[in-house]
Amino acid sequence: MSDSRPIGVFDSGLGGLTVAKEIFRLMPGEKIIYLGDTARCPYGGRSDDTIISFGLQDARYLMEQDIKMLIVACNTVSSVALEQIANEIKEIPVIGVVLPGARAAVLRTAERKVGVIGTSATVRTESYARAIQNIDSGIKVYCKACPLFVPLVEEGLTDNDITRLTAQYYLYEMIDLGVDCLILGCTHYPLLMETIQGTVGTRIQLIDSALWTAKEAQDILNALHALSDEKSNGLASSRFIVTDMTHNFSNQASAFLGNQLPEIEKITLEELTK
Amino acid sequence: MSDSRPIGVFDSGLGGLTVAKEIFRLMPGEKIIYLGDTARCPYGGRSDDTIISFGLQDARYLMEQDIKMLIVACNTVSSVALEQIANEIKEIPVIGVVLPGARAAVLRTAERKVGVIGTSATVRTESYARAIQNIDSGIKVYCKACPLFVPLVEEGLTDNDITRLTAQYYLYEMIDLGVDCLILGCTHYPLLMETIQGTVGTRIQLIDSALWTAKEAQDILNALHALSDEKSNGLASSRFIVTDMTHNFSNQASAFLGNQLPEIEKITLEELTK
Repeated sequence: MSDSRPIGVFDSGLGGLTVAKEIFRLMPGEKIIYLGDTARCPYGGRSDDTIISFGLQDARYLMEQDIKMLIVACNTVSSVALEQIANEIKEIPVIGVVLPGARAAVLRTAERKVGVIGTSATVRTESYARAIQNIDSGIKVYCKACPLFVPLVEEGLTDNDITRLTAQYYLYEMIDLGVDCLILGCTHYPLLMETIQGTVGTRIQLIDSALWTAKEAQDILNALHALSDEKSNGLASSRFIVTDMTHNFSNQASAFLGNQLPEIEKITLEELTK
Repeated sequence: MSDSRPIGVFDSGLGGLTVAKEIFRLMPGEKIIYLGDTARCPYGGRSDDTIISFGLQDARYLMEQDIKMLIVACNTVSSVALEQIANEIKEIPVIGVVLPGARAAVLRTAERKVGVIGTSATVRTESYARAIQNIDSGIKVYCKACPLFVPLVEEGLTDNDITRLTAQYYLYEMIDLGVDCLILGCTHYPLLMETIQGTVGTRIQLIDSALWTAKEAQDILNALHALSDEKSNGLASSRFIVTDMTHNFSNQASAFLGNQLPEIEKITLEELTK
């Protein structure tokens, strides 16, 4: 048995392409329909009501495209609105990026102290702390919002003194707290991996939720006998849809995906929210 | 003759409150209806099409509120969409923040070299350069996009080493270019006035578009005999409307306005775009 339908993946913007990248790496034959709400990104500083409303609109749009699985590749939406989305969509599996990252951290922490960095909304909801402590209530979780990391990545300053100073500003307290695992709870942060690792030192293991989410998607599709028969060319058959074609778009997209994107489709906000 | 109707002011978010602040300072009796599209801010990195669409929606919403003048208190919208907005609205005066700032710079530059800093969209459109060179084509204008300044202000890091390092990164070339006036072409930047002045030195005069826009509004209302009879309490009678009530909302709003805001009204994006 196999299922050749695409996997639906959405994010507030282009950061979710880091999840798409890991999907293509693990399952090169899978097709994706990616939706990035680039006309309204970033979601991370908005209220819960707005994040739930935007997240449901994104999910409903992808549900009209005949997908076999929905991945909420946005830590903010996964933290605030995954329950609402999963309550509405019963026909196919729906996964977010929080639980896979949390599980990976539980497996890895020896000191039983985990750090989490993310957007304001992700940290405010304590989604990672709840997910980790649901598995092992003895693990201590320390969260820190790092709102400047997203604009630094979008400005292309991944290797820059401003970024290193910002990383020190946000992360020195994680060292003092003695965490041995640090979850990168935002899809933009893998692009800062080297700067973050350089700041916190090699004693702290960085956990990239994007990678573990792709792994979870693979496990679920495998269990459901729903992997595609194709073994390659998934990227070339995928569709990439955005709500705004911004100016530095292709550079940013390629940085997240680690690859050139095929043709991009632009839809209006009216088409998204109809 | 007088006109007691409010002045309509809008911005992508809360930054336009720096214009409102100057209006209340110059004309304490004037009432404002302020609209901040906080569910979709910032506009500065979006495409022209999206900025025009959002700007027209904001303008139309305020036009339904019986205002006597419309101020586009957003440098991005003023740079990209002012013509479209002014073409649609003929009944009342419509002003943006670009021309007032440009005029102030022309009056002040002795070296005839003006720097402009703003969002990516503001710089890309060369709106300030065109406005300045329409007045005096001999003045040289150097523009620089500073996309990190907005998130730094929103993070509250107005007095911080990260901000000083970022200011050096963006602004040292302005010193090398020999400008003697620097236009703060974004409503967030007045909050960075001290850091920016400290970076470029006192030989470079900073020009705050917000202040000059309020002055222009006063001149126009005065010429039209449309100032209010009231001499005080404008702020208390004003209305403040946003599309999202974000979490650090009141701190940010107070920082921009230099005052406590009265009650805030929240509308949905559906109400804004209907």
